[in-house]
Amino acid sequence: MASSAETAAMRRALDLAALGPRTGPNPRVGCVLLDDRGRTVSEGHHRGAGTPHAEAAALAALAGDVPRGLTAVATLEPCTHTGRTGPCAQALLGAGVRRVVVAALDPNPAAAGGVQLLRSAGVEVETGVLAAEGEELNERWSTAVGRGRPWVTWKWAATLDGRSAAADGSSRWITGEQARTDVHRLRGEHDAVLVGTGTALTDDPALTVRDAQGRPAARQPLRVVVGRRELPAAAALHDGAAPLLHLRTDDLTAALAQLHDREVRTVLVEGGPTLAAALWRAGLVDEVVAYLAPALLGAGPAAVGDLGIGSIDAAARLHLRAVDRVGDDVRLTARPGPPGPTPPSPTPSSSSRPTHPQEA
Amino acid sequence: MASSAETAAMRRALDLAALGPRTGPNPRVGCVLLDDRGRTVSEGHHRGAGTPHAEAAALAALAGDVPRGLTAVATLEPCTHTGRTGPCAQALLGAGVRRVVVAALDPNPAAAGGVQLLRSAGVEVETGVLAAEGEELNERWSTAVGRGRPWVTWKWAATLDGRSAAADGSSRWITGEQARTDVHRLRGEHDAVLVGTGTALTDDPALTVRDAQGRPAARQPLRVVVGRRELPAAAALHDGAAPLLHLRTDDLTAALAQLHDREVRTVLVEGGPTLAAALWRAGLVDEVVAYLAPALLGAGPAAVGDLGIGSIDAAARLHLRAVDRVGDDVRLTARPGPPGPTPPSPTPSSSSRPTHPQEA
Repeated sequence: MASSAETAAMRRALDLAALGPRTGPNPRVGCVLLDDRGRTVSEGHHRGAGTPHAEAAALAALAGDVPRGLTAVATLEPCTHTGRTGPCAQALLGAGVRRVVVAALDPNPAAAGGVQLLRSAGVEVETGVLAAEGEELNERWSTAVGRGRPWVTWKWAATLDGRSAAADGSSRWITGEQARTDVHRLRGEHDAVLVGTGTALTDDPALTVRDAQGRPAARQPLRVVVGRRELPAAAALHDGAAPLLHLRTDDLTAALAQLHDREVRTVLVEGGPTLAAALWRAGLVDEVVAYLAPALLGAGPAAVGDLGIGSIDAAARLHLRAVDRVGDDVRLTARPGPPGPTPPSPTPSSSSRPTHPQEA
Repeated sequence: MASSAETAAMRRALDLAALGPRTGPNPRVGCVLLDDRGRTVSEGHHRGAGTPHAEAAALAALAGDVPRGLTAVATLEPCTHTGRTGPCAQALLGAGVRRVVVAALDPNPAAAGGVQLLRSAGVEVETGVLAAEGEELNERWSTAVGRGRPWVTWKWAATLDGRSAAADGSSRWITGEQARTDVHRLRGEHDAVLVGTGTALTDDPALTVRDAQGRPAARQPLRVVVGRRELPAAAALHDGAAPLLHLRTDDLTAALAQLHDREVRTVLVEGGPTLAAALWRAGLVDEVVAYLAPALLGAGPAAVGDLGIGSIDAAARLHLRAVDRVGDDVRLTARPGPPGPTPPSPTPSSSSRPTHPQEA
């Protein structure tokens, strides 16, 4: 049982963790150190790859001597591996921490085992304190490390009747300015943006993150093009405004594995319909974000390509996570799996993935 | 200028009016009678065709003698025509009313002129008091009488990618139970439900209003089938559960005019896509209600048929009025015309139609 001081410290640690970046290879983690009377003596959070982990940050923030017998309250199981920084479980042992309280366990096979290591060393460990909140915090990261491939968000924009372009192929603009600005926000929340060579050649997109005034963001996601066709030298993707990676393969599982190896944890798929449909059919889509404009075309290319579905019983069922108005348009956020309080996960390896009750 | 007592009475009259039926040939009207000190002495509202108008109801509710010099506060311009009941303007004159306060003017050419008649007879008339609320109350009715054709709501159900059926034609069920129940509510708010012969022959729908337990509602809208093909004797529409009208024409303007002549003021179009698209192209659609299921099909018939639109610049722009979650599905309510605070009306004859600021 966690004490009320420890639970309160966990809430604070969750808030601290949320200050960390949503992108990048590492999870967001917060840590609060309590003395033997339950008073906070230090706190810290992870600020992104290459910077100290939350536990190390909290220990480093202790001015002067480290009192013995502290309790460490951490949103994620302390890691056991040495990456760019040293293992946190060891650091806590070194600091003579008496007790460790943890929200979520580490789904990363390379880093897990911290709880066991601490217990073996005689440290009291309490797990599962505000576990749902701790899991929610790093849901996309947990899914990625659990599956060995990035979290995949499939974004599309269409008219109310599901068209992504008119009969003559024209498509600028279907959605309004606010929705287009929102897409830039969405890009900025992913490590990489992915399109097929077809879209790269047809639309010549820049796929950069820009603000409403067109100014590029400081951090740009990796621009990834998948497919065997070459891009012309004059393609906007060659503009140097953000890194570009051309994966010359049609094997999407292999492409995602390559991205995972490059520490890409989240990918935003922006098209085209054929690439997105292929990812869907392969069970590689974790979230769908559809921007629907209040407009009708009645003809023209469909936003969603052939999913190999022949009858209504085989329809790909999703559950809505959010419905939001964005300017004059509507943004629907949904995930694979039928509606219900605990939607079954789409792949067997996803048992580490937190489930969430559907929003009201 | 209306006094504060009169404005308060108008709010009450609006509330009373809203108790009246949304369907049927008549507008919803409320009336409050005030004495010369601004005190309410009587009130009334219209309860549907064949029952007294609001002003007559308010006068009738006066116990004993009618005091002279009353002020009548009415949500709609008192009528001047004798239908199933007598003209209200005459009734007010007969009762010796001194002053009349009105919210909305009567857009019905056959009934308008009440204000002028009253003024000619020396009665003080104040118009435009809470006019927007008064117009909103009978928006569909006003549109219908102003245009000489019923208000047309186009309803469809589709997947998130705009499909109304799978590749093999199967379509039961795309939306969930709550959305299907909501469609029955929507039917019940219209005077008639309209389908083409194609839908009648293919889907064999009943088009009745039933509750969640399948029990038929007491009031059923007129079931209308338009098109030249005959329905088989065994068709569900021949079940006698509600009146059926088969309009053997392809002229939709003429069909709607026929419905207007039968005092149908509101029509819910339930398909198929070809009929709905033809109505849209003819500028005969006033509102769109789309139920979108969080599901993907990727193939199969589109919910919206050919609108004759070739390029994105010609896209049929709507403005969203409401976005609601209905069970696991989403209901989008939209109207023709681009987004904006005062969307232009789609037809020149609609100047009598109230406009509404878009919802936030």
